This record gives sequence, structure tokens and C-alpha cells, in this order.
Amino acid sequence: MENALNTEHLLTGIRILDLTRVLAGPTCTRLFSEMGADVIKVESAPDGDMVRNISKMRNERSLYLIQQNLNKRSFCVDFRKPEGLALIRELVPHCDVVVENFRPGVIDKMGLGYEALKALREDIILCSISALGQSGPLSHKLGYDPIAQAYSGITSMIGEPDELPVLPSVGLGDVSTGTHAAFAIAAALLHRHRTGRGQALDIALLDCYYHYHEAGVHQVSASDGTIEPTRAGRHFSYVCPVGIFPVKDRSLVLVAFLHHWSDLCAAMNRPDLAEDPLYALDAERVLRRDEVNGIITDWLDTFEDVSAAITKLEAHGIPCAPVLTVKETVTHPHFLARGTVRTVTDPIAGSFQIPGMPIKTSEYPADNPYVAPRLGEHNEAVMRDLLGKSDSEITSLVNSGVVIAGDN
Amino acid sequence: MENALNTEHLLTGIRILDLTRVLAGPTCTRLFSEMGADVIKVESAPDGDMVRNISKMRNERSLYLIQQNLNKRSFCVDFRKPEGLALIRELVPHCDVVVENFRPGVIDKMGLGYEALKALREDIILCSISALGQSGPLSHKLGYDPIAQAYSGITSMIGEPDELPVLPSVGLGDVSTGTHAAFAIAAALLHRHRTGRGQALDIALLDCYYHYHEAGVHQVSASDGTIEPTRAGRHFSYVCPVGIFPVKDRSLVLVAFLHHWSDLCAAMNRPDLAEDPLYALDAERVLRRDEVNGIITDWLDTFEDVSAAITKLEAHGIPCAPVLTVKETVTHPHFLARGTVRTVTDPIAGSFQIPGMPIKTSEYPADNPYVAPRLGEHNEAVMRDLLGKSDSEITSLVNSGVVIAGDN
Repeated sequence: MENALNTEHLLTGIRILDLTRVLAGPTCTRLFSEMGADVIKVESAPDGDMVRNISKMRNERSLYLIQQNLNKRSFCVDFRKPEGLALIRELVPHCDVVVENFRPGVIDKMGLGYEALKALREDIILCSISALGQSGPLSHKLGYDPIAQAYSGITSMIGEPDELPVLPSVGLGDVSTGTHAAFAIAAALLHRHRTGRGQALDIALLDCYYHYHEAGVHQVSASDGTIEPTRAGRHFSYVCPVGIFPVKDRSLVLVAFLHHWSDLCAAMNRPDLAEDPLYALDAERVLRRDEVNGIITDWLDTFEDVSAAITKLEAHGIPCAPVLTVKETVTHPHFLARGTVRTVTDPIAGSFQIPGMPIKTSEYPADNPYVAPRLGEHNEAVMRDLLGKSDSEITSLVNSGVVIAGDN
Repeated sequence: MENALNTEHLLTGIRILDLTRVLAGPTCTRLFSEMGADVIKVESAPDGDMVRNISKMRNERSLYLIQQNLNKRSFCVDFRKPEGLALIRELVPHCDVVVENFRPGVIDKMGLGYEALKALREDIILCSISALGQSGPLSHKLGYDPIAQAYSGITSMIGEPDELPVLPSVGLGDVSTGTHAAFAIAAALLHRHRTGRGQALDIALLDCYYHYHEAGVHQVSASDGTIEPTRAGRHFSYVCPVGIFPVKDRSLVLVAFLHHWSDLCAAMNRPDLAEDPLYALDAERVLRRDEVNGIITDWLDTFEDVSAAITKLEAHGIPCAPVLTVKETVTHPHFLARGTVRTVTDPIAGSFQIPGMPIKTSEYPADNPYVAPRLGEHNEAVMRDLLGKSDSEITSLVNSGVVIAGDN
């Protein structure tokens, strides 16, 4: 069976022409493929998605590719050949949605811009994902996740205030942007149901990063620049105590603002601090944050380890958590019970863990036994079943190098 | 006109019963309200959403509340009174979706669990948002964004490797989780179109945070724990150079991995480094990362300021960006041109800026002149127009304190 697993799920019946690579775009389309949509991942010959070359941890197979491309079909086409582009155009009428994350302008040069797509299918939905957007003076710039993050002001909010900021080692921008794009597409599909019309969507990492600012933008604006939001190290700057504390072997997150403060004072056996007007309110504690955090740090230092501290804190109803390493999460009972982490089994790379689907529904499993496609694995199925090509046409396209398949 | 702005948009015609507060839930429902859905924000009397008490920067009006609740209607009900809960139940048949972010279990105790809702409307979609999920051994714990972040392993990926991690001062978990929830709801609405059936959705900050791990989970798993992903300070750990560099007055993000390295060598007038086998490949440069970053830092130090450095880097096609402060973003031409930042005008608080809608469509404006509701502003409209209450019934509910309104 060469087809993707045709499992009934929320998005069964939708077909996506997926022209994306690396992370933001593939995250978007994977949310669809794992929920039952037919996602045709069009890869550029000869090498396909560039992530096929990273995280090749077993049998030359990219685990990165697998994580982001479960249950998609791979159709590998030479974009530089007119016959290759013609095949992509032929696919458009069979698809509800086209998703792309080329640099702005490229899709138009390929003859696959929104107007060109509409000529092929009037109600097509085109979702364009980019670093800095399809419009505006910065839109032409070369973009990667850290570039959009730096422009967005988010980088400036991470780190110690008197030092250079730090760069998180996770896909904050790409994953969130892929999810925003998935929502935008689903909304456009609902709109198409109601009106019969298609849509072009412009989703940028910059805009999605900017969306993370919960208070900074209105604070700087409404104060006419008097308030200048910036990073605050290990602790929140506007309430106290909320932050990261050391406990012997490791670190602990503690949230003891508002009414949790008096609970913490009880836990520390310091009822005097709960009543002292210098410490009673967040506004007062923020003014003497270093002192307050020092008291807590000294108290936490009396525990043998972080578990003992958490037991004590939770007995007093104080929200807290150990800072888990990634290694600790993959065997954690809660992660396993809930499917926050899951095991995939790949025909080439074998079994290993990846993050579980973050969408859990009452009617369908979150994590089906999906696999990711080999490069061009579904060339024939796509050309025969969707485009109605004959055996001899398919052979000719293969022999002339218009479509290509790989072992991996 | 007391109603929300009834502007045609992608999600016109959908009605949401919004039982959420603070950030993750309101982010989800705001994506709907700004795209034309009718969102009835049910607030708990007497005070309503607790964020009405923060960021009260002008005329005692919460700018935080405004940012997250544009174009919603406010219905303020006493949850502790049976008549209050009865009103909420009466609303269910008029709504397509119920969204809640109470602590797991609370919605059942209120008599508004999924089975109870289904009895009121067979095809109802319930979206439950929580910190650690509705199931699993940790699900009962008190949760806030930093708690879920610590458990997810994300906190461990932010900061210098030999120091405690740092806590970003932005809503990474809540905003992303709200967006995941919005996508899940839209998918469930598409499914309802196809099948006529409703759905219960379980969306957790923990799962959405875990979704950010682009490589760490499969790396630790497939290496049987030999690879232990952790934070890497200001630079990526697996390619080089990608990171944050100082330039006189401020900091700069530079992405010069893969083929960009030879461009950087040309910019630095160090063609020798492009050809030297000790520096030619990312794998080699990662081994001598401090040395490579030192060479770049010394070179960047020869520029007068960050603009001069960027001009030089961009002339060589090297992706780079200044680390903007939040204050700099609100006047930046790109942000203004694109609507990455937008101005809202509130009847009480006046005009100020907030992040623009991250979903840009071809057919509708991203940012309409929406306002956020005063506490209970739409009590009457909801009771009269949706529930068919008479004037005397409404008066009675107001006089007995079942519904409450505020000035702000």
C-alpha cells in the first residue's frame, strides 16, 4: 500500500498541495495530514526537502523529516523543468488548498501566484508563509526564525537585563507560525463552505512572534515610551515571586504571586511576611524583588532535593514545577499517559519518540501509526490516480528526470 | 449600538460561548471574534475576568483586557447562583462552541461538562484549555504558563548551559495554546459540516509547549539518552555561526551557516577561512565555536554601529537583523505598513497600540475598528435577543444580582 494512511479524522476529505519545506510550512500541513487530510508534499528534485539531510541518526534516514511529515505523500518534481511545473499546475484543480513558504515573490515567478491558481481553480485557498511577510519594506529580506524573532522584539525579552539576550534552542517561531497558518486555512475553508469563495492568506513569523507580546506593546505605547519593556532574567518583573530558583541539584519554577504569597509564607513558617506591609502585595514585593527572592532561595536551600521542596510547596497549594530536561520528559509517566510524547515506528529508521499531536479529540486517536514518505514515494500514485496519466506517460516523465524518487 | 461590530469576515455566522479568562482562552476566542464570529464572553460576577484589574493605565480601564477581548460581547453572571448557571445553560443551544479554561474537573462540577452540554445541544463542540491537560497524573496540578513550560522541557532549553535557565517575559505558552485551540475548534467545525457531529477537545499548554521541540525529543530518544539536549546560550549548538553578537551600542542576530559562511568570509575579507578545512563546514565550525564567534565579534567591533554592520552584511547576502526593543517596534515603518502593530481606539482608554492580527487575508481587513466590552455590557442584548427574556424578567435578574454590569 503506497498511499498515506487513510484514517478517518476531523479533516478527512480535504486535500492540500504542500509546497513547503523545513519547519513552519511542514508543521502547518502536518496538523492537517495527521487529522486525516490528504497532503501532497511536492518536493524539489533532486534532493527534496533539505531536512532530509539532517538528524540522519539511523540508516541515513532523517528523523527530523519524519517528525514533521507524518502521513503526507511525497511527489518529487524538478521545478526547473517546464514539465515539472506543468505537473504541479495540473494538481491544483484537485486540491482545496495550496501552502507555500518560498521567499516572497518566488511563487509568482513560478507561475503559481494567487491569480494563476485561481485561473486553475476558482475557489482555491493559497496560504503563503514567510519570515517577515508578503508586504512592507522588510518583506524582501532573507529570513530565518532567529531573524524574525530579533525584529519582533521577542529576543529582547529573553535573558538577563544587563547582558546580551539569549536564543532559545527550540522552534518557537516556526511551530507557532505553522499553527497560526493551519488555523487561517481552516477558517478559510469554513468561509468557503458558506460563500463558495477562496482566499489568499499571508502568515508571517514576524506577526506570529509579535502576537506573543501580552503586555509590552500596549505598555510602551500607552506610556508614550516611558515604560520600556525588556527582559527580566529568571523572574517576572511585574509580579513577585514568579521565577526560577535553584534547589541543590537543579532548578524549580515557583509561582507565588497574589493569594499564593500567604501560602508560601505559611510554608516557609514566616507568617510575619504575609502581614508585613512591605511584603504583603505584589507591587511592594516587586520593589524588593532581590530580597524576597533571596529569602525564598535560602529557604529552598534547606531541602535535600527538588522533590522534597515540591512536596512541601504542594502541601501548601503553591504552584511549582521542576525544570525538566528533555531527557526526563521522554520517560515521564504523565507524558506517556497523555501522549504528550509518542513513539513512531518508521520502516527505515525504526522506533523512536517525538512530540505527540497537541490536538486531542474525543472521537479520534491523537496519534495514529503514521509514517513519513520516502522521497517521491507517491509519484506514481499521484500521477496515475489524480492526474490520470498512463503507464507510458509516467515512464516517460520518470526517464526524462521530471519526477524523481529516492530510497530514503 | 450595544452589539459587537458585526463585520463580515471568514468566521461570520459562528457563535461561541466563551467561559475563559486571562490569556490562553481569550486568545483563542479573540481569533474568532476578530474574524467575525459572535463571541459571548461569560464573566463571573462580581469582578469578571481578573485581567480587568491589570494594565489599568488610563481611566481605570485595563488595556490588557482590551487587547485580548476585541469584538466580544460581555455577559456577566453570578456563577454561584443557580439562576446564573441556568442562564449559561440556556445559552448553549444558541452556540456552536463552548470554550473553557477552568482547572480540570470544574466544568463538570458546574454541570457544564461535555455530556451535559450534549444534552442541551447534540452537536456542541467543547474546547477545554488547561495547563497540563484533562488526563494524566499531573492533570490536577495548579497550572500557570511557567509551570507548563518547566515541565515541558522548554525552560531547560533557554539560557546559558552552565547557569540556571531564564524565563522569557512574553506569553509563549498561552498565546500558542490559544492558537492551537482555535485551529482545533475550526477543524471540529469542518468535521461537523461533514458529519453533523460535535466534539470535545482537550488542549494543554504542556502539549503545545512540547510541540516546540523541533529536534530535541527525537535526538534524546533515538540516541538512547546519549544526546542530552540543553540550552546553548546565545548561539545554536548544531550549526555555526547562528546567534547573537554585540555591536557597539546593541546586539545583532547573524545567520551564516551552510552556504552563508563563504559570504560572511567574503564580507570579513577572510577568504582563507572559507577554504580552510578547519572552518569550511558547520560540523567543523561547531567544534571551534568560541573561536569562530570570537573572529566574528572582533570584526563586528570595527563597525561604528549596528546599522553599518547590517549594511555590510546585507551587501553580501548574509541574513541578519538588529535585536529590536519593543519600544522600537511600535514606530518601525515595516510594522506600521504591514499592520504587525496596530492602533485601537477605546471609548474609555483612548488610542494606543497592540499587536496586529497575525492572520492576514486577501478579502477582509485584518484589523477592524473593534472595541472590547465593558463588564456586562451585553447582558440585556444577550438575555433579550438570544434568550427571549421579557423586560420584567431581565429587571428581576438584574435586581437579584444574577447578572451584573460595571462601568469599565
